[in-house]
Amino acid sequence: MNQILIRSVLLDNRFSDVLIEGNVFKAIAPAGTLRTTEPDAMEIDGSHRAIVPAFYNTHTHAAMTFCRGLSDDVPLQVWLEKYIWPREARLSAEDVYVASRFAILEMIRSGTVFFADMYWHRTETARAAREMGVRACIGVTFADVLKKDSDENFRFIEENISAYSDRIRLAVAPHAIYTNSAESLKRCAEYSERFHLPLHIHVAETVGEENRSVTPTNGLSPVEYLDSLGLISERTVAAHLVHVSEKDLQILAARRVTCAHNPCSNMKLSSGTFQMKRFLEHGIRVALGTDGAASNNNLDMREEMKFASLLAKMTSGDPTVLSATDTLKMATRNGAETFGLNAGVIAEGKLADALLLDLDVPCFATGDVVSNWVYAANSSVIDTVICDGKLLMRYREIPGSEEIERDFRNRFSSRS
Amino acid sequence: MNQILIRSVLLDNRFSDVLIEGNVFKAIAPAGTLRTTEPDAMEIDGSHRAIVPAFYNTHTHAAMTFCRGLSDDVPLQVWLEKYIWPREARLSAEDVYVASRFAILEMIRSGTVFFADMYWHRTETARAAREMGVRACIGVTFADVLKKDSDENFRFIEENISAYSDRIRLAVAPHAIYTNSAESLKRCAEYSERFHLPLHIHVAETVGEENRSVTPTNGLSPVEYLDSLGLISERTVAAHLVHVSEKDLQILAARRVTCAHNPCSNMKLSSGTFQMKRFLEHGIRVALGTDGAASNNNLDMREEMKFASLLAKMTSGDPTVLSATDTLKMATRNGAETFGLNAGVIAEGKLADALLLDLDVPCFATGDVVSNWVYAANSSVIDTVICDGKLLMRYREIPGSEEIERDFRNRFSSRS
Repeated sequence: MNQILIRSVLLDNRFSDVLIEGNVFKAIAPAGTLRTTEPDAMEIDGSHRAIVPAFYNTHTHAAMTFCRGLSDDVPLQVWLEKYIWPREARLSAEDVYVASRFAILEMIRSGTVFFADMYWHRTETARAAREMGVRACIGVTFADVLKKDSDENFRFIEENISAYSDRIRLAVAPHAIYTNSAESLKRCAEYSERFHLPLHIHVAETVGEENRSVTPTNGLSPVEYLDSLGLISERTVAAHLVHVSEKDLQILAARRVTCAHNPCSNMKLSSGTFQMKRFLEHGIRVALGTDGAASNNNLDMREEMKFASLLAKMTSGDPTVLSATDTLKMATRNGAETFGLNAGVIAEGKLADALLLDLDVPCFATGDVVSNWVYAANSSVIDTVICDGKLLMRYREIPGSEEIERDFRNRFSSRS
Repeated sequence: MNQILIRSVLLDNRFSDVLIEGNVFKAIAPAGTLRTTEPDAMEIDGSHRAIVPAFYNTHTHAAMTFCRGLSDDVPLQVWLEKYIWPREARLSAEDVYVASRFAILEMIRSGTVFFADMYWHRTETARAAREMGVRACIGVTFADVLKKDSDENFRFIEENISAYSDRIRLAVAPHAIYTNSAESLKRCAEYSERFHLPLHIHVAETVGEENRSVTPTNGLSPVEYLDSLGLISERTVAAHLVHVSEKDLQILAARRVTCAHNPCSNMKLSSGTFQMKRFLEHGIRVALGTDGAASNNNLDMREEMKFASLLAKMTSGDPTVLSATDTLKMATRNGAETFGLNAGVIAEGKLADALLLDLDVPCFATGDVVSNWVYAANSSVIDTVICDGKLLMRYREIPGSEEIERDFRNRFSSRS
């Protein structure tokens, strides 16, 4: 069985040996005490390195790397209608495959081993993730007003559920209330329940979203309306939730919804001000997402952590809100748990997903490792990425990356 | 005379040759058209590179790298009184030299060639900057309530002004109204006028600052009070300005003050919400600063740009505010002009300060270079740093960096 022993690595301020067997952490013990037992076991010198949980990106649109940097600093509707939707209308399946591979390369380099996706040509993003060794939850995306493919989507779920049961899973992903009818939304909820699938949806991203609902909400807020249709449950991953009332927060807490918070995207698009402290006070689970590269403009969860923490402090007027440790948990364990993964923590029995950080980088010279990781570093300090017990990146090298970058540039770059 | 020819580099979307002679840009012309004339001229292949202005950090405390990551997520007064001030009280001149060198190394790696500093043991920070080739404006720091050295400070200015006239200059730097009496502040203003020095001061960083003023302000806001004492002029660099009234903004605009905006520090310390759009509407010049590494927690102006732009969009509710181009100008040209440097733009006759960015990095594969630099990249894409016509970093290598890092770790690291 596959064995990797990471020797003398800093884990929670202690130098430890970490033994991976198969796809789990088999043993963790003081440095110098563990041995491998398999003849082909690999050993990694962990000295001058810290081991931290890898990132779980709970809301993104991976393939949108193809439109990064093409339309910034414009109002949301102009951005969608003039730049994004016309480009998306011309996208082929192969385009999505190439752009998804490019996105996953960026994710691995910046420490992300899981992403929850919502986009078109879903099987191509799934193929890219499967080939490249990361985990993903691929949304089967519903948007009545843009595409008339709901029946086909539901059939896809029924026929393919068994093929998406391990590292690559499915979610039911109705895009939003302003792109789907009440009837379609209800059926999504039924499928989510019947097949035990996450329900991934944009909710209350912009002010007055209820006024643009395909089916009139009759005065209900987006959260109340979705609740009335059965879409608010412990399987729900609601992206954004920028505009919520006290009553909405009570519903979200009672139903044990996860909020996928995307600070960079919300700020860049001026969507509104997310109220982190109120979510925490209500005990609502918050995880982090980068959103797509067109509205962020990267997929870098380290940067997202700093934005999340600093935004929460500023918005609440309380510098003790969302400490570095809490922020790291949000970007790791909370995301993993949301999607039913026994991961996000470096502990025996957990899925072997982890990052090694290079402590020789100057920003780690003083102070707390987690503080420096969240507030001072950037993703270039990541030396090694492990997912499901396998090395995806070592010394910042990812096998096959040159071809993936070349394919992407040949297809999408105007300058290459 | 020192000559550097950068061949075929992307400048404002055109491939150009850029010739540096002495410490200025001598000529800029279409790629393939320029030649060097000096026998020992250096040539740099600029292909796959973009040339952009280097950063001018208008508010920092360089030596505070020594307390990075030691005290995060605590209220401001606890942070100052329990962690920062006790540590600073024990600092030696050599400590400041070592920590300043370490800070300047971080600045160069992240593209900063100038910093406006305010700290103790000023000559040590100046020495570090002079040796390492960057520009600096060293604040002669006044804080009556902490140190009784005002007379000595004024004498230092009189005696040393001529020694600080080129790359390393002086500023009069009264710390704040809550650390200096009205009398001392007035005398600072007189020295700033008499010696044509910038007046660098913290203003309105936290709410109710006027209530903690050493000399009662008699109901005046910090800006009004400082104006009444003669400290608000075109030489004033006012850091923070988070809490300002409409009347304050009118005063700042009329007096042509520069605001040194520090988004990360303000957000991390929950100081308040900076109103960028109102400053721009009043035509007030805004430049960027990182503040010290203890409250940010890095000196990375690229990250500061993204925070500044996204914060301005969120706060104003207007995604068109502070475009990528405007943000880059704020971090470069605005800072240079504030300190009287004919720099911050890549153009003939300007001081030869610049960065080369590696366009082979994936985030530059599509879209606009400036957008990608501000929103998508991180500072590891900087390949080369030029200041005053000299190469400070090439292929990410900085001569002497190992010794600087070792000295710092030996003195300050608990883990080395």
